[in-house]
Amino acid sequence: MGTLPLSPREARAWDGYRRMQGLLASQLNRQLMADTGLSDADYAILSALLAAPGHRLRGLALRCEVQWEKSRLSHHLGRMQTRGLVVREECVEDSRGAVFQLTDAGREAVEAATDDRVAAVRTYLVDLLTPAQLDALASISDAVLARLAKDDAHLRAVAELARGA
Amino acid sequence: MGTLPLSPREARAWDGYRRMQGLLASQLNRQLMADTGLSDADYAILSALLAAPGHRLRGLALRCEVQWEKSRLSHHLGRMQTRGLVVREECVEDSRGAVFQLTDAGREAVEAATDDRVAAVRTYLVDLLTPAQLDALASISDAVLARLAKDDAHLRAVAELARGA
Repeated sequence: MGTLPLSPREARAWDGYRRMQGLLASQLNRQLMADTGLSDADYAILSALLAAPGHRLRGLALRCEVQWEKSRLSHHLGRMQTRGLVVREECVEDSRGAVFQLTDAGREAVEAATDDRVAAVRTYLVDLLTPAQLDALASISDAVLARLAKDDAHLRAVAELARGA
Repeated sequence: MGTLPLSPREARAWDGYRRMQGLLASQLNRQLMADTGLSDADYAILSALLAAPGHRLRGLALRCEVQWEKSRLSHHLGRMQTRGLVVREECVEDSRGAVFQLTDAGREAVEAATDDRVAAVRTYLVDLLTPAQLDALASISDAVLARLAKDDAHLRAVAELARGA
């Protein structure tokens, strides 16, 4: 023990958030698949490539987008290559890993999907909220992301110490 | 086209939420695994069983908890049986599927994990928020869940019409 149980107010926020995030993610994923044939992971990868300079990113940058284990992402990227959405550029002189580039077909797919994704985000989240709730959601996210970044910085420092030792 | 692009205020809320939910879910999952050896899915299933009358639930009720495809959940429950956390009760006279019951070991595991989970939820979400932000998160979740439930009711009605036809 030692941890204070959640108060009713805290429990209401956490239970609501927990249920919302699970069900909203499923709904957005299902809807995108039905509208476009792309999964959330496809869309996250394609959007990240679309936004990147030259539509190219390293595998590691893509892992940060989808938060998957390396092997799962690498299988997924393999299937996306087969579908003609991305190409892999092997870089022999560079140990930092392969670079993935959006194909023309990939660019068309993600551009077409963006409108469907925005429509679903409006239907199931944004259009349901007042301006004050939109601002609250942004500030809540900022607070949580700042806390997570603090841990990340700590982990990076520990990893660097370990490498130096 | 036809969908209004997100305004800067709307985009800030959606981008924040999207990044927060991905990173927070990963962090809570990692932390629970490190503290207890249980995955988020294990914990969701065990908590649902702990809260259920007689610590027993049907497979379908568990699917609603973890939002997984039937085959993925059934493999997962198989592994949880092997680990001695749940037992499966076959019910020959009942076509509504198997019932799963928490074992004593499962109950001990989930009770021990609850304190770790609450501590992590405090660290990465609840303790970071003001009372007004906690209430905003609860009311945002209520609005989104009510919208999702409306679709679900619609889907159920369509499915019933289809069965009747």
